[in-house]
Amino acid sequence: MRGLYIDHGKLTLRDDLPEPAARDGWSRVEVHRAGICATDQALLAGYMGFAGVPGHEFVGVALDGPHVGRRVVGEINAGCGSCEACRAGDSRHCEARTVLGIAGLAGAFAERLALPNDNLLPVPDGVTDEAATFTEPLAAALHIGDDVDLATHRRALVAGDGKLGLLCAGALALRGADVTLVGRHPERADLLGLPVNFATGWLEDDADDDGPGPEFDLAVEATGNADVLPRLLRFVRPRGTIVLKTTTERPTTVDLSPLVVNEQRLIGSRCGRFAAALDVLQSQRFDVRPLVTARYPVAEAEAAFEHAARRGSLKVLLDFAD
Amino acid sequence: MRGLYIDHGKLTLRDDLPEPAARDGWSRVEVHRAGICATDQALLAGYMGFAGVPGHEFVGVALDGPHVGRRVVGEINAGCGSCEACRAGDSRHCEARTVLGIAGLAGAFAERLALPNDNLLPVPDGVTDEAATFTEPLAAALHIGDDVDLATHRRALVAGDGKLGLLCAGALALRGADVTLVGRHPERADLLGLPVNFATGWLEDDADDDGPGPEFDLAVEATGNADVLPRLLRFVRPRGTIVLKTTTERPTTVDLSPLVVNEQRLIGSRCGRFAAALDVLQSQRFDVRPLVTARYPVAEAEAAFEHAARRGSLKVLLDFAD
Repeated sequence: MRGLYIDHGKLTLRDDLPEPAARDGWSRVEVHRAGICATDQALLAGYMGFAGVPGHEFVGVALDGPHVGRRVVGEINAGCGSCEACRAGDSRHCEARTVLGIAGLAGAFAERLALPNDNLLPVPDGVTDEAATFTEPLAAALHIGDDVDLATHRRALVAGDGKLGLLCAGALALRGADVTLVGRHPERADLLGLPVNFATGWLEDDADDDGPGPEFDLAVEATGNADVLPRLLRFVRPRGTIVLKTTTERPTTVDLSPLVVNEQRLIGSRCGRFAAALDVLQSQRFDVRPLVTARYPVAEAEAAFEHAARRGSLKVLLDFAD
Repeated sequence: MRGLYIDHGKLTLRDDLPEPAARDGWSRVEVHRAGICATDQALLAGYMGFAGVPGHEFVGVALDGPHVGRRVVGEINAGCGSCEACRAGDSRHCEARTVLGIAGLAGAFAERLALPNDNLLPVPDGVTDEAATFTEPLAAALHIGDDVDLATHRRALVAGDGKLGLLCAGALALRGADVTLVGRHPERADLLGLPVNFATGWLEDDADDDGPGPEFDLAVEATGNADVLPRLLRFVRPRGTIVLKTTTERPTTVDLSPLVVNEQRLIGSRCGRFAAALDVLQSQRFDVRPLVTARYPVAEAEAAFEHAARRGSLKVLLDFAD
């Protein structure tokens, strides 16, 4: 079958990819549309020494299994099914997990993929394919609310106005937080259609004396650059929370004394549950489609990746079904 | 009055210290006994450019105010009384606070000190002076349980078998945790009189491949060396918690990606409430007195500080009332 393959930092479009095998308890899905994520770009740049089919944001149609014939999206962590985490219904922290398009499991940038039946969720009719490709990153953004009590963390700062930062800002605004998005593109806050303040300059290297006092209850790191962490510690009140949403490839040097003195919490946050994201998409209360910068047929995947890497780009989608 | 004074990294015993002034809503206390803490040693070494009377672990007798004539201990953060934190009855995070013997408020290594009335707690009869000097650090140790649900964090690792590490291990064991203390002095775990496992080597620089897997729910950093943090991230399960109990003077370099991938929480933790610590001391369920290495009259304070700094020392007390 046709799909994209990354090996040794090179992306190729191949027609000889193996079909996903039939497997008990798993379904195969025909991919219709998929989104390029910063993680895909990092994998292409060599992150985790990745070799394989990337892609983990998709919508498609189930070819077999309990949802056969229906439009589906799929949670990306495939667990062993028998460990404590899996038995509790949450494969996100199964130690033996594979992760769609990221670790040990061929991804969504191909005509077909396979995932455990339990990972798949039908897409409500009111949610377009384009919106549905945002289910995964929107779930990750909404997941902040699973670990932070937004009732006591109303004043939220989101650092970074890239794809993930925008989704985090939108997700928090949707949940009633008073959100300030800090980035370099003031016009992007308007894309959200939700009340979000915008600030610039607070995270820049030469802005040592800039920025607010410790007036935020919550700060979300979504720049992909953990070097902003010392600044975020300064912007958050005592006993407030900093959420790290992005991994970085190199160690960060940070003075953690303020975290101790001010008794702040630093929380790592990764994947969310899809049901909450589908609810939001169906409600139309947060229209994610303005975040789409471009769509490309899979045959032009190389151009799509180039476009995604261009300054100013947000979400670039790949079409498989057209 | 007589007391100790630190200035430019030099400790002197002085007889000309100013008496604490009478102040509305404050009490004066005659200090009987005081404990030397690692923070005092850091202040002497130049931490925070400290100049003044150090000391914040004490027991004494109230000379005026609501507890006049009674033995008291005192919480060390003196708030402004009018900010949001103070109005909520918690001056620990008042932005304008002074801190006994640490920041802007003459400390306990003197014949007399002053604190707000609300900071003072009477010492129950069953608690000796010696035990009562541990109220402050024991409260800090017990405070871990205020921010971490020990029901879901039963398997606890405490890094560091110094004074604070031992108190943290004891406090957690007392609260029902299954505690492993990691340090260099196996004999110290026995001092606690509580069931605590001991391990060594897991935190050493040359122990890259040593140590357990991610089998702990909770790790407490009490070594004073934040460089152990990357190791602690490895020892804690996904969605587990790492508590930082000590501040360090220099930045730490740490790869925070595991924190994100495993969705761990890093929590800064400082001062606890004294009532809980006095309850523990009165219950006799945790006898802290074996942690006393030596007692010195205040006239021999220099020798006391030297003893406290010696390898193998635990708590050194200063006697004022003898």
